[in-house]
Formats: sequence, C-alpha cells, structure tokens
Amino acid sequence: MVVRAAVAGASGYAGGELLRLLLSHPQVEIGALTAHSNAGEPLGALQPHLRPLADRVLRPTTAEVLGGHDVVFLALPHGQSAAVAEQLGDEVLVVDMGADFRLADPADWEKFYGSPHAGTWPYGLPELPGARAALAGTKRIAVPGCYPTAVSLALFPAYAAGLAEPEAVVVAASGTSGAGKAAKPHLLGSEVMGNMTPYGVGGVHRHTPEMIQNLGAAAGESVSVSFTPTLAPMPRGILATCSAKAKPGVGAEQLRTAYEKAFADEPFVDLLPEGQWPSTAAVYGSNAVQIQVAHDEAAGRIIVISAIDNLAKGTAGGALQSMNIALGLPEDTGLSTIGVAP
Amino acid sequence: MVVRAAVAGASGYAGGELLRLLLSHPQVEIGALTAHSNAGEPLGALQPHLRPLADRVLRPTTAEVLGGHDVVFLALPHGQSAAVAEQLGDEVLVVDMGADFRLADPADWEKFYGSPHAGTWPYGLPELPGARAALAGTKRIAVPGCYPTAVSLALFPAYAAGLAEPEAVVVAASGTSGAGKAAKPHLLGSEVMGNMTPYGVGGVHRHTPEMIQNLGAAAGESVSVSFTPTLAPMPRGILATCSAKAKPGVGAEQLRTAYEKAFADEPFVDLLPEGQWPSTAAVYGSNAVQIQVAHDEAAGRIIVISAIDNLAKGTAGGALQSMNIALGLPEDTGLSTIGVAP
Amino acid sequence: MVVRAAVAGASGYAGGELLRLLLSHPQVEIGALTAHSNAGEPLGALQPHLRPLADRVLRPTTAEVLGGHDVVFLALPHGQSAAVAEQLGDEVLVVDMGADFRLADPADWEKFYGSPHAGTWPYGLPELPGARAALAGTKRIAVPGCYPTAVSLALFPAYAAGLAEPEAVVVAASGTSGAGKAAKPHLLGSEVMGNMTPYGVGGVHRHTPEMIQNLGAAAGESVSVSFTPTLAPMPRGILATCSAKAKPGVGAEQLRTAYEKAFADEPFVDLLPEGQWPSTAAVYGSNAVQIQVAHDEAAGRIIVISAIDNLAKGTAGGALQSMNIALGLPEDTGLSTIGVAP
Amino acid sequence: MVVRAAVAGASGYAGGELLRLLLSHPQVEIGALTAHSNAGEPLGALQPHLRPLADRVLRPTTAEVLGGHDVVFLALPHGQSAAVAEQLGDEVLVVDMGADFRLADPADWEKFYGSPHAGTWPYGLPELPGARAALAGTKRIAVPGCYPTAVSLALFPAYAAGLAEPEAVVVAASGTSGAGKAAKPHLLGSEVMGNMTPYGVGGVHRHTPEMIQNLGAAAGESVSVSFTPTLAPMPRGILATCSAKAKPGVGAEQLRTAYEKAFADEPFVDLLPEGQWPSTAAVYGSNAVQIQVAHDEAAGRIIVISAIDNLAKGTAGGALQSMNIALGLPEDTGLSTIGVAP
Repeated sequence: MVVRAAVAGASGYAGGELLRLLLSHPQVEIGALTAHSNAGEPLGALQPHLRPLADRVLRPTTAEVLGGHDVVFLALPHGQSAAVAEQLGDEVLVVDMGADFRLADPADWEKFYGSPHAGTWPYGLPELPGARAALAGTKRIAVPGCYPTAVSLALFPAYAAGLAEPEAVVVAASGTSGAGKAAKPHLLGSEVMGNMTPYGVGGVHRHTPEMIQNLGAAAGESVSVSFTPTLAPMPRGILATCSAKAKPGVGAEQLRTAYEKAFADEPFVDLLPEGQWPSTAAVYGSNAVQIQVAHDEAAGRIIVISAIDNLAKGTAGGALQSMNIALGLPEDTGLSTIGVAP
Repeated sequence: MVVRAAVAGASGYAGGELLRLLLSHPQVEIGALTAHSNAGEPLGALQPHLRPLADRVLRPTTAEVLGGHDVVFLALPHGQSAAVAEQLGDEVLVVDMGADFRLADPADWEKFYGSPHAGTWPYGLPELPGARAALAGTKRIAVPGCYPTAVSLALFPAYAAGLAEPEAVVVAASGTSGAGKAAKPHLLGSEVMGNMTPYGVGGVHRHTPEMIQNLGAAAGESVSVSFTPTLAPMPRGILATCSAKAKPGVGAEQLRTAYEKAFADEPFVDLLPEGQWPSTAAVYGSNAVQIQVAHDEAAGRIIVISAIDNLAKGTAGGALQSMNIALGLPEDTGLSTIGVAP
Repeated sequence: MVVRAAVAGASGYAGGELLRLLLSHPQVEIGALTAHSNAGEPLGALQPHLRPLADRVLRPTTAEVLGGHDVVFLALPHGQSAAVAEQLGDEVLVVDMGADFRLADPADWEKFYGSPHAGTWPYGLPELPGARAALAGTKRIAVPGCYPTAVSLALFPAYAAGLAEPEAVVVAASGTSGAGKAAKPHLLGSEVMGNMTPYGVGGVHRHTPEMIQNLGAAAGESVSVSFTPTLAPMPRGILATCSAKAKPGVGAEQLRTAYEKAFADEPFVDLLPEGQWPSTAAVYGSNAVQIQVAHDEAAGRIIVISAIDNLAKGTAGGALQSMNIALGLPEDTGLSTIGVAP
Repeated sequence: MVVRAAVAGASGYAGGELLRLLLSHPQVEIGALTAHSNAGEPLGALQPHLRPLADRVLRPTTAEVLGGHDVVFLALPHGQSAAVAEQLGDEVLVVDMGADFRLADPADWEKFYGSPHAGTWPYGLPELPGARAALAGTKRIAVPGCYPTAVSLALFPAYAAGLAEPEAVVVAASGTSGAGKAAKPHLLGSEVMGNMTPYGVGGVHRHTPEMIQNLGAAAGESVSVSFTPTLAPMPRGILATCSAKAKPGVGAEQLRTAYEKAFADEPFVDLLPEGQWPSTAAVYGSNAVQIQVAHDEAAGRIIVISAIDNLAKGTAGGALQSMNIALGLPEDTGLSTIGVAP
C-alpha cells in the first residue's frame, strides 16, 4: 500500500515536523508541498534540516495543487482549513492540524475564535476513550492542539475513574515553536532566552475549551479547567502540571492503579516508574508522552505531570498516528518513542 | 556610617550575588570572605565576574575569621548556620540566607529537614504585614527561601483581604542557579538546556511549610499549598503561577483594588499595568518583583503570577533589604529595581 | 554638574541598555526619549526592566524634541544619524551609536554601506592609542561597533608592539541582541536556541573595515582582517578569537609583557591571570573587557581572546565612557566592571 | 544478516546516542550494555529517552560480558579501550569511540595523552581519501574525534586539490555534550547558559594532532593547525570555522569546483547552495555534515565552515557508518540525513 500525501503549510514548524516524520513512514510517498508567502521557493531554503526534500519547490495552497492525493495534511492558520477542505473530495483523507474542527460546541468556537463554526470532525487523540473507533476508516480528522494533548492525556484517567473533583488547575510550559514561525518581537531569541513569562492567563487561551470538552467527556460531568500557559526558553516541548482535588477517600495507590490500567496497552504513553519525573528533553522529537502521578496528601490533591514534544505527539506525530488508524495501518508505523537527548 | 560585612559561603551562587550587591552598597565595607572546600583560593578564580574582589583570598568558615564584623552573612548549606551563629556575639547582625531559622513550628522543621529545630528569627520579607517592625533593630534575620518569596508576595494580599479560599495551588519555574553550584549530573548544561522537568512534587519540597506559614498568617486561618517546582532552562529567575478559588462574590475589580492597596508604597513590588505580564527577564539582576493578577471567571479562580530573580530579591537582595531595615538605613540602599535585559 | 541627556532610539536594545546605565550615572538627568514606530507608547510597555522610566512616553525623533539637552545619544539605524546630527547645535555633545561617522575613508564607507560618506568623528574607543586625547572636550563622538571593540582591544597591543604579522584572522561569536530588536524569522528563539551559525562570511561584514582601520593604525602598516561572525544562542556577549602569525622570534613572554604594559592602567580591561580564559558570562551587563593571550608555538601564531558584553562595553557602555571623557568627568562614572553571573 | 552488538559505556552521552541509532538499524540486535559506576542500574533511569531499552540492566564492563557479540562498541574514557580490546577475539569487530587508536605517530600520542601508544587502527572517517578501502572488512575501527571530523571534512578538499597554504586556522564552537556526562562545576547549566568561553587554547587540545594528521595526508605535505575550541550554550553541535591562505591564483570558482567534486557522491555531506550557511540546528540528531566555502578576496583566504552533530556524525553516527562499511552493509543503513529542527 502506497499512500500519496500532500502537505499544505510545508514551510512552517508543524508542516516541517510532519515532513520529517513522513520521510520515515514506509507507506507514504510525499506529494505536493504548498505554502502561502513562501510559494515558489525551494524547501531547502526554509527547512534546511529536511535534506532529502531540499530541491522540492513550494507551490501555492490551492485545491488544484492538493488534489489527486490520498491524504492531505493541512497545517494552516486557524480558520483557513474549512475553505480548503470542502474543495477536496470525500474520498480524500483530510487531516487538519488547525483548530477548525476540534470543538463540538459552536458557541465555544464562536466565543474563542470569533467566526462561524465549520463543524466537528473525529478527534485525533487515539488514547482517549472511544477515539480509535471514531478514527477508524474516517476521511476527516481534527488533530488536537498541543496543550490539550498534554493535558487531556494527563488527566482523563483520573476523571474516567472518578477520582478527581471536576475543577482542574493546569499550568503548562511550552517551547517557543508552539507559537509558530511568524516573526514577532516577543518571540525573538533575545527576548525568550533566559526568560519565563505567562500569556493568555485567566481562561482566555483558545485551547481551554478543548481541554474542558475532553475532560468533561471522560468525567461524565462538566469539568472546569483553570489553564495558564507559559513560554519557556526552549525550542520544543510541553511540560503540563495538572491537578485537581482528590475525591474523598482517594489515595496514592488507587491513583497509580487507575493510571496503570488506563495506559497498559498504549504504545506511546510512558507512565514512568515511581520516583522518576517527566522531562521534555526525554521526548524531544519522539511521539512518546511521559506521565507521572502523585498524591499530595496534605493538600488533598491529585497531581499529574505530562511531557510531550509539542510538534511531534502534540501536532505532527499525533496527526500521523491518527492517519495510520484511519487507513488501517499499524498505529505506530513511522513513529518512534525514542527521544533525541541530550 | 560604615558597616563592615563578612560573607560565609562566598564561593557559591548566593554568596557571589550578595557580594555583587554589597559592592554597590555605599555604607558597606566588605571584610572576610570564607568558603569550605575553596578556602585558600583567590575569589577571582571562582567568581570571575566580581572583578574588584578578584585578589581576595577565601578563608575557612570559622567564628574567628567571621568575628569583628558588624554584619555576618551566612550563605551556608541548610543546617549549618546555627552552629556558626551561636559563636558570633549578640552585638553582631547575623543574616542567615539558609533555612535554619525560617520556620516557627519545630515540627515542620523536623519533618522537612530531619534535624532538631534551631529556633526562629525575624523573617526577612519586609513586604509581609508586620515584617518591617520585627526587622527594625534586630540582630538576627532569617532570609526567606526564593520560592516562598515569590509565592508569598503573590498571594498574601488576596488572603489578607479575605478574597481567596484557603487552598492554594502553585506551580513555579526556577532557573538552575537555585539548585546551587555543587556539580550534579542532572544540573549539567547538557541536561537542562532545552528541558523542563518537575521535582519535589506532591508537597515534599522544603519550601512548602514556609509558604503555608506566610499565607496562613495573612489569612488568619490555616491555608494549604499544593506546590510543584519545575526546573527551567535559564540560569536565574522564578516565575510563580499561583491560584486559589475566589471567595463567593469576589470579582476582578475587587481583586485589583486589593493588590493596588497592598503594594501602593512598596519600593520593590511592580504591580504591572493590566494587560502586561511578569517575565523573569525583566527582573534579571534586580530586586524588583513583578506581579499581575487575573480573575478566571469561568473557573472561579484568582490567579496571581509573580516574577523575581531567585538570587537577587529571592536571596541576596532580600537579605540586603532586610539588613538595611535592621540597621536603620533607607531600605533601598544599594538595591536596584532595574533589570538587565535583554 | 548636571548633564541633561536625550536618547533617540530608546525602544531598541542599544537605547535600552544606555538608559539602564544612565539611570546609575550620578551626573546625568534623563531628558527626552524618542522612537520611530513606537512613538506615543510608554517606555514600560517596551522596556519593562527599566522600571523607574516606565511611565515615560516615547516621542518622535525630531531635532525639536532632541534640542535643549547637553548630550544627545543617537541609537538609530545606520545612515540616519547624520541628518539628525546636523540639526543639533555645535554646543551639544552628540554621541552616535550608529556607524555613520566611524570610518575615515569615504571609499570604505561607500563600499560597505552604499551611500555617501557623512564624515568622521572622534572614535569612542578610549583604550586605543591617542583616542583619549581626541575625545577630550569633543562635541561629536562615533561609538565603535561591538565587534570592532572586542577585536581591536584584543589585537592592537600585539600590533602596536610589532609582534604580529599584518594578517589577522578573527572568528567571533555574538549574542542575538547584536542583531537588534526588529523581528526577523532567523532571529526567532525557535531558530537560535541550540544553534550556531555564521553570517557575513568572506570579508563582507560591515564591521571589517573598522577593524582594519584600528589595527592598521596600531601597526603603522596595512593590516588585513579575515573576519567571520557567528550567531550564538545567548542574548548578549561577544567572544572574539583573534590570531595572527607571530613575527620571527616572538615568544610567549614577550607577548605577555606587551599586553601587561598596554593595559596596566586601563580601568575596564581585565587581562586575566595566566590559565584563566575570558567568558561572556563574566562580563554580562558590565563595561569590562576580559582578555587572555596565548602563543601557539607549533603553529607559530599569537592567539588573543576577548569577551565583552556587546550592548554594554560594545555599545552603550563605550558610549558613556566616551561621554565622560568628552565632558571631563572621571572616565568610570556610572560604569561598572562587575558582571551579573551566573 | 543479524549483527549482535554490545555497547561498553552505555550510560554516557556517546553510548546513549549510539543506542538511539542502533535501535533504528534493521540488521542490529542490541546485546550487552555495560557501564562503570552505573552498573546494576536500569538504563531507563539514566537514558530516559531510550524507552524501548528502559528495562535493560547495565552490566560491568568486562571481556566476559562483552564477549559473544559480532560487534563491540567501546565508548570509554581515553586510554581504557586498549585493555578491553585485546581481550576480545580477532573475529569480533571492535569499534573504538575513544582516542586510543586514532594517531599514527606514537610520539604524538605520548605528547598529548601522556601514556604509551596502543597502536593505530583503520580510521572511521569514510569521506577521507582512501578511508573506505581501509575500513572494508576490517575488524578494528578507530572512530575520529568530533572536532577532527568537522575540521577534516571542511578542509581536506582544499588541501587535496592543492588550493590552500599549509597553515590552517580553526575556531570551533561545540555543544556541551562533547564534554561528557561527568558532573563538573564549569559544565553546570548555570555556568554554560548565556556563555561562550574558549578552552585548550594554543595548540594544546588533544584533537589537534588528529587534524594535522588528516590534513597533512590530504595535502601530501606537513600542515600546521592552529585550533581554538570554544564551549557554546547548546547541548549538541559543532560549528567549525576553518581557513587558510589561498595558494597564489586560487579564486572562488576553483574553490567551489573542488568541493563539488570532492563531495559529489557523498551521501552524508551536504555542500550547501551558494548563499546558504551551515547551522548546527539543521543537523541536530542527523548524520549529515553541512559545508559551505567562501573566498575572502581581500584577506586572500579560503574559508570553509562545517556543521555536524558532535554526538551523531561526530561520534556515534560515524561509528555506525564505519561499521556498515566494515561489515559490507550499505553505508547509510540505519543512518539519516534528516535533522530534528527547530
């Protein structure tokens, strides 16, 4: 089986990471690569690390260029995927790495994105309950945001097992590639090196409703999420520190058991041995998720910490994993749990 | 007035930062500098940035060497200050930058440090209610830990004003200098660059009881603190993301007013204009604390974020500020609110 | 004596660093602050580390705004200083931190900058032979480039003493602030962290003729400089590795003696003890220059390595040092040799 | 064909990187993993990024443990390989990633390492003239040092083509992993972040004779190398800036042609298009070498810049590439030219 794949947005960080992974996927043949302002340039000038594709010339992002592939990955700015997707046939597998089709509730979309809701597609986080069934055979996939990936995987087992009160508090640190490749002063190396700073504080970050959606589904009741993202001086990685009050009577052992059970068969979740903590360096470039749980007895809280590579498992790796499921390929084809460290 | 000061532990990061600040203090004359394993070496080989002191030779940390000064700063490993302090006369101002005399409750000390409690000294965080009165004229000062400085300043106004429920959740990122200068594999540059990782999760970090002590005093009731420290890829700085459920009826305006009132006359607290967020880079090398507050309405939580330089306001700057108060000098003598950025 | 100073280009990195230093200068009163696209904004939104000036509003860069000060610092893009300077009276001390008036040879200027030469002003590198005399009492100062500062100080003693062949090879690493605050994709944190890359290779960097000019003057003969700058993953600092073949018979001792002699009375040059090497961290935020010399006997070369803070001694500190000389103030007023480390 | 491989020194950076690569090599089965002080520990506690090997327990480094494999990789401190190697049979392929067997001249070894010379093995830098022939079928391989890899590949074409004078000047920046995983104060994150500093200046670095050996062989005459290594604030990567005077009459075109010819068929050398410069980020985790050449006409010098990943092509990747040749496998088996960026 050969899968011919096109990538829209190949000059950005998500597109570049996807291409890095696709180059190692034995069934994928890389087809058209498109870009917006960089159309006409060779990929080697923009993504010099992708040497085998250095001579590929970027083409404009049009339905014509993207047509004729088995899979089309959309790594476009939020709000731009819908228009492209509807021009692609129903027989094409469209994997949207943007936000357009992640949220089920149109009101949430409109509140956080300020435009009409485009719809809801099967959600590309296979580890969530029921997700694999929805992805199998689908022709449309909404890849989750990087923060919701880290946070939902950290907390859903506690909620699914009824161990946590429905008020989650999340503080996450992200590498700068999560903010994209568009040049903005506050993302300059001079600004971010040696610096930690929060942004989108107070529930206003666009990834918040996605977390609420995922955790609420796991809990079977409404869950609030107080989410504070921070920008960390590193190119990649998300470290999410997630907590909630433990339900009465819940202890460390029960917690550990729930997580061991939830992740027993997950190829990409690395529930660490007790005493070892997640680190973003250990999952650099890999599709693995490191998770550790703790019970803060004095404070009565469950604390779960997860580490992912925001561009890999958090975006492009998750997209590829979901594509594998949709196409009936082994889920880990072309994906690795080995990080590049130090 | 000339104050002759000795520094025990001059080869470490806290001692080095203190010397950097003392060199700019118009009343201080730097006397004996001591060290443990580095005794006998010139300071220039160990702290090459402190050029005016390059030829000073480090001496052993003994009462004899430290005697005969007006002020003795102790930048020693936890548990070693008491033995030195008791050999110094009552007329000497002893400023302990270690943990030995911070906690009021001997049980807390024994639980977290595993040795007999040495006592409790006036607490060197002048911004806390009542702290200045206790510091004025004292001959013994316990300088707070770096995390408790960042967290207590962030949350005490909310507790003092009765706006927050007594269950705080804190996630803080610290630069690596907070872990000291002793060479340990996990602190190697190869390990920390590009990496975020938690440690001391689940209420076991030794700074937790200090936060509980400070916030409880402000609240007038017992406050629990769920504290998760993380190691960030930067040499200096603490960014503390602190939150608690808002008491019923509390809103954004009330919150802002309480913080404006609490910090109206504080020379080192920079309550930022609305819309601007703290960053560790902005306080690099300075004694300033940047603070911003937010009300997460959907989650019903008060979120307060603070940024300090862990070595400056978090250790050596706080020590000097407290010394100034104890000696009756203007509180900001030799201290700056100007950061070194970018 | 009170010196009233205006700063044009106060929103950039050079302007910000100058303001940081001016705030500690006992004779300077900070007057008008101007900017181009940021005019109208409060400085606190752009330079949050300069807390005492947070409420100052940036004004447009016009002769009218800049008039009426004793000193005007110009931190403007190359080629823009001349037009502003000629509108300021002869009685005003104008300190140009741009390139416009550095080069003596109009042909050099035209070759490297592509516009008509504006003229040549006294050169603000006081440590060079004859420089202090030219600066004393002047009303116009051309502050050197950051690379020429590091390289000229490293090599001029060897050339002045006739120890080196007139073909220098220089490879220098610079922190990213040297490239300014304008947002460009290759300067994003995601691009520069974990990365070293050269630029302006092959003698095309605009700082090359300035080095040739300075070293040629010291040598009394024409000196070629093969200069390769590299971008390093740090916000500040220049480490310059400079070498030239030793003249016949020159040895390590002769070399050391020449450097000791050249810098014996220099307040800001830190010729390190043998065996100790310069580091950019040690001069972070300081006006010091660390220098070390070595004789590579097998290769027959003199190697001199210097470290400076590109924004401090390399730009704003050098400007202030030169201003002090021009105004007859003690040369080190408001300047420090103490770095902020770690 | 299944190749059973043992790795001595599996807990260090070189050993870890080798294991990362071996995990992707389709013919290799990973056998015994040994360590010194970490023997008895599970690999997952020391190399958490190598998830598939997390449960492997490290064994002591003895001939008994290492015996019975087809290939034994030695990632041991310099001077320790010889004793181990001589206990392994002649039928075992021994790949030494240390320095012991790199130098041909015993006097060089004794001068730089201070111990008796163990011998000389075929040199694992396949791109050098004649190297592949020597590696084919060999049972002993000396993997080059990381700096000599970067420098020899950068300069040998110029020397082989007779374009450069025999006096090379090299300044190279290395990531901190090149200094290994042993905890030393100057390698702490607090020390290296934001810092550039040289070491081993003046021809004393142990990699110097290896460069001289390689370049002299290419030139057919004795070549001197003035080598200055610097430590850069990044975990991985070497950027080598290499230059030499051009022989009379040599110009840019001739230079470009020589490099195009030298690397035309090299699978891992990426001679960049004109105008594009090497960056260590682009080769992060990859076996590629990025190279660019320039002619500094004014200074009369040839400048060649190369970028490698010091742990990959500079150590473990080069070792694997050489193993492939020795075993008659396709040279690029299990190796990639794709970097992990940003």
